[in-house]
Amino acid sequence: MDRRSFLKKSALGGGAAAAGALAAPAIAQGAPRTLVMVTTWPRGLAGVWDAVEHFSDSVAGLTGGQLLIDAKGAGELVGALESFDAVTSGQADMYHAADYYWVNQSPAWAIFTTVPFGMTAPEMMTWYYGQGGAAKHAELGEIFGIRPFIAGQTGAQGGGWFRRQINAPEDFQGLKFRMPGLGGKVLGELGASVQNLPAGEIYQALSTGALDGTEWVGPWSDERLGLQEVCEYFYPAGFHEPGSALSVGVNLEVFDSLSPEQQKAIEIAAAETHQQNYALFIANNGPALKRLVAGGTKIQEFAPAIWDAFGTASRNVLSAFMEDEMFASIFESAANGMAESSNWVALSDGYYTQQRNRVLAAL
Amino acid sequence: MDRRSFLKKSALGGGAAAAGALAAPAIAQGAPRTLVMVTTWPRGLAGVWDAVEHFSDSVAGLTGGQLLIDAKGAGELVGALESFDAVTSGQADMYHAADYYWVNQSPAWAIFTTVPFGMTAPEMMTWYYGQGGAAKHAELGEIFGIRPFIAGQTGAQGGGWFRRQINAPEDFQGLKFRMPGLGGKVLGELGASVQNLPAGEIYQALSTGALDGTEWVGPWSDERLGLQEVCEYFYPAGFHEPGSALSVGVNLEVFDSLSPEQQKAIEIAAAETHQQNYALFIANNGPALKRLVAGGTKIQEFAPAIWDAFGTASRNVLSAFMEDEMFASIFESAANGMAESSNWVALSDGYYTQQRNRVLAAL
Repeated sequence: MDRRSFLKKSALGGGAAAAGALAAPAIAQGAPRTLVMVTTWPRGLAGVWDAVEHFSDSVAGLTGGQLLIDAKGAGELVGALESFDAVTSGQADMYHAADYYWVNQSPAWAIFTTVPFGMTAPEMMTWYYGQGGAAKHAELGEIFGIRPFIAGQTGAQGGGWFRRQINAPEDFQGLKFRMPGLGGKVLGELGASVQNLPAGEIYQALSTGALDGTEWVGPWSDERLGLQEVCEYFYPAGFHEPGSALSVGVNLEVFDSLSPEQQKAIEIAAAETHQQNYALFIANNGPALKRLVAGGTKIQEFAPAIWDAFGTASRNVLSAFMEDEMFASIFESAANGMAESSNWVALSDGYYTQQRNRVLAAL
Repeated sequence: MDRRSFLKKSALGGGAAAAGALAAPAIAQGAPRTLVMVTTWPRGLAGVWDAVEHFSDSVAGLTGGQLLIDAKGAGELVGALESFDAVTSGQADMYHAADYYWVNQSPAWAIFTTVPFGMTAPEMMTWYYGQGGAAKHAELGEIFGIRPFIAGQTGAQGGGWFRRQINAPEDFQGLKFRMPGLGGKVLGELGASVQNLPAGEIYQALSTGALDGTEWVGPWSDERLGLQEVCEYFYPAGFHEPGSALSVGVNLEVFDSLSPEQQKAIEIAAAETHQQNYALFIANNGPALKRLVAGGTKIQEFAPAIWDAFGTASRNVLSAFMEDEMFASIFESAANGMAESSNWVALSDGYYTQQRNRVLAAL
């Protein structure tokens, strides 16, 4: 018996057995159900695995244990980057991932994680929940038979660690730097020798001089890799991942087979996890940065001329994606959202925060 | 028969009637239940009433219609400021409000909305969900027999509307300005003649010169009051409400009588509403600000010397609250949270946003 006819039968059976109207809607929920979730994360990876667990706990709690999620670390059922195909093929029911891993399926997926010169976490919230982003996500997912929701958020990722200072765009010429994805392509345009080592090999490559620098996530995660032991300079602000959302994606047939309240549990738990996970990253990055500074790490800013070079190169790299109609349409929606609200945010939150931090430090 | 023994009986009856284990847990949910919610808002007030509706819809959706909320506008059941007592006395099951209305019950409630020189919306998220704020909220609520959750967010409120420019702290001397609450006390310290008119009387007072200026909420809400017609100058950044959270508070006995999944629905829907409502305000404030500027409103910033004066006066006003032990303990938790993470946020999101906005404008 397949899952759908099983559900149909149990709903009918329950309805017939109920003496009054009281029990019928409840019985229609059926037996507890477990969804298999593949992820792109090593089990237990700080921050992102917390998002997996928080989301799963919320769904279980909201459904009174009627909907459970069995989360698999990368490689436990399929490899990290096979998660998308596992869900579209029905091998798994859902994934938790960064959607920019699926750029080969469609470049547009990248926008739902982050793109160079893209949205910060609060801007992602604004666009996704207030300016039509969530509907665009659903529209893109439908093409692939997936119902996606953002469900995690690292906040701004660090600009990177360097063994020597970067004072001008020319300093990237020949620099052996680790940065995957679109950001790496941008640094390639500036003449860097871009490499893409997995986490386990970064420390060694930096200590032997095989790498001159690397980006990873942010102070909390970077400190755990020990990057402060092999690089003197840390640049907190980067152009490449200004606020990376993580997502769940549910096989569309599986999603359609859930009860309306189970569907709602996934939708609301995902949104709540986005906010909670953002809080977790910021709450942990702050103290980690303090420890790094106390330990001797030198905090740097890229000069405006370097940001100009990042900007020009980012536009060149994104222009290839802009030929994809879906990417262009979703990018425009996000860019318009940012443009509509960035002035208000800069003039209110932005100026307030600057003045408050100055005044409180002086009081 | 009271509700609890009714629930017990129906659960037992359901368990006995069910042929297998399948239906039993679902039946235990019992009959649909409606909670009466009083609010401090006129029914339909843009932004804040949207939070009421979004929260109610989420709870209904998550519980499959088993838990419904009957929201009352201010004055429909009790007056706005009687909402707290209505919930503690059991006249209503819950409220939706800004918790700073309850400063007479305890000054500490103010922190869960906003205080002068306090947290922005993203900082509130970080503290509340990542640095222990939610637990402090529950602790405060327990004293009064209330289970509170933040469940709405206006973002930064505008600094205010003025009929003439403010160039120095002395310009507040004798200024007839509308600002309620702690912010008004701060302006009083600067010599302003502070008044507290309800929304319906502000426009008239400004047009006759009975007021020299006012704060309200932000561009979206302010435009609807027509403030741009009676004031030439708008200051987007203010010191007084840098990010105002709204809250639900549930009578503790009522909350304890809910099933675990209904309790979870309220908790998760509240958090999700906080993020969604923030998005709604930012998404609407941006375009409203553009319209105001296009219509001739002059955008201003308070000079740093004015912020210094705001800071000193705010510290004086808050010092009276600091004598309250609960206020002092919760204030310290929030201030520590801000101090722990503000440097990371300023160096990453802050510097990124500044450079990105500059570069994108030039590209």
